[in-house]
Amino acid sequence: MSTYILNFSPTGMLPTKQMNPHTPISTSEIIDDVLMAAELGASIAHLHARDQKTGEPTCDLNTFATLFEGIRKYNKQLILCASLSGRNISDPTLRALPLSLDGDAKPDMGSLTLSSMNFSTQPSINAPATINYLAEQMALKGISPEVEIFDSGMSNYLHCLIKKSLMPPTVYANILLGNIFGAQPSFAHMAAITSSLPGNVVSSFAGLGSYQLRSNTLALASGHGIRIGLEDNIWLDHKRTTLASNRSLLERITAIANLQELTPATPRQVREQLGLQPGQGRYGLPPIVD
Amino acid sequence: MSTYILNFSPTGMLPTKQMNPHTPISTSEIIDDVLMAAELGASIAHLHARDQKTGEPTCDLNTFATLFEGIRKYNKQLILCASLSGRNISDPTLRALPLSLDGDAKPDMGSLTLSSMNFSTQPSINAPATINYLAEQMALKGISPEVEIFDSGMSNYLHCLIKKSLMPPTVYANILLGNIFGAQPSFAHMAAITSSLPGNVVSSFAGLGSYQLRSNTLALASGHGIRIGLEDNIWLDHKRTTLASNRSLLERITAIANLQELTPATPRQVREQLGLQPGQGRYGLPPIVD
Repeated sequence: MSTYILNFSPTGMLPTKQMNPHTPISTSEIIDDVLMAAELGASIAHLHARDQKTGEPTCDLNTFATLFEGIRKYNKQLILCASLSGRNISDPTLRALPLSLDGDAKPDMGSLTLSSMNFSTQPSINAPATINYLAEQMALKGISPEVEIFDSGMSNYLHCLIKKSLMPPTVYANILLGNIFGAQPSFAHMAAITSSLPGNVVSSFAGLGSYQLRSNTLALASGHGIRIGLEDNIWLDHKRTTLASNRSLLERITAIANLQELTPATPRQVREQLGLQPGQGRYGLPPIVD
Repeated sequence: MSTYILNFSPTGMLPTKQMNPHTPISTSEIIDDVLMAAELGASIAHLHARDQKTGEPTCDLNTFATLFEGIRKYNKQLILCASLSGRNISDPTLRALPLSLDGDAKPDMGSLTLSSMNFSTQPSINAPATINYLAEQMALKGISPEVEIFDSGMSNYLHCLIKKSLMPPTVYANILLGNIFGAQPSFAHMAAITSSLPGNVVSSFAGLGSYQLRSNTLALASGHGIRIGLEDNIWLDHKRTTLASNRSLLERITAIANLQELTPATPRQVREQLGLQPGQGRYGLPPIVD
């Protein structure tokens, strides 16, 4: 059986209990969903922290530490990625905060969106200087970037970061399809992105909203990994009659994969592929060049 | 002979006399270059105004009025597009100012970039609400948008603006290639954009920096129009040994077109194609729907 990377994104910044009661918001809920996903085959967890009182996204260090340590108490191999999103935080030093955690709280990866763009209701600003700063901070600390690509131009910019020696030898990228201002899950758009990626990139497809199922299925059928979870999509069906849970999303996509003779890669296999050692960040840090 | 749209962008926001002494900065210099370009076949002029003292980009109404009236004194048919760029102005009402001009100072078109994105040194923010506001203002005043597309996602968003009845029956778009954070002049990237454009779009290709010549030549050889001028590229050669002038850029590309049996469409032909009447903006305004 061939394997695929299963990247689990349980919470994100937008879903609330009001929108979907299955959304994990408290740290213990997120930990429970991540451990459940690991049993179903997740090798990477892409994690946002939420304020324990308000439920709002936070970059508070204690919350991230409790979350990461809580998962690692039960699972040392699972690859943990801290979101460094700037959707509600603009100061790059605040965005970089989770990179300063150590020990069992240290992330293996940090997310890195490769340009500014719009989401449906607001812009998401990632200035060139911010992208370079976050990449530098990750390189310094031996934390691997989880590159987020929403369109062809971001795929193009990845070449520049590699030239600046700000990327590890093997780069992991999520290709996120279906944002109204981004690439769609069409062959033409997917070809534009994948054909212009550097050769050392391992990638997964995610889809926003009702594009999640289509993007994930296209990924499995084309040899890519998948990113899946309530962060990107809260509905199980296209008609939006049934709310999804992280478990129902995972069970369906792993069933589709199984029928294609595909099995999830283990965290250990993905660590080997991406050059990530547990608790130590990535192998051999490249020199920083300006 | 087949025809092509020649869209002339003489000045932009970035070039200075220090960078290239041929850059037209004063209103009379810009008028001279536009009239010269019209003689060489330009049907559309994409115009930025510069402060007459500092040379900095401005949205000052008098400067725009002097510029547009100065051109129309000699040429009533040429299609004049006012840049509504937000690169150095964030307030949408300031960006919309040139749309309030009337008579011979009234623009035929206003530029409209369809998302936020990065340029090489800074983000360019066009929030969803700003895009909709500018499109609404243009629809109200019978001014046609000159849509600016830098990647597949912007091509996707155009469908939404059409659904909201914020676009004229025939839409004009520039596809701008070669921004480091945008689509490149590669077949895959161009196919991603053009294959996802709505059916009623007439488009020209522009290229940034040394990609200008390649993008323009690909455009001519594939039946598209071209946008060309010092705004996008100040060098004549790839090695950057010879500074371009607007005339030298235009003479070279029209020579390439001529050798392909292509002749520039007249302003009257392009007005017919896009549904633009001189001095009256576009034909029949569509209803505004929220």
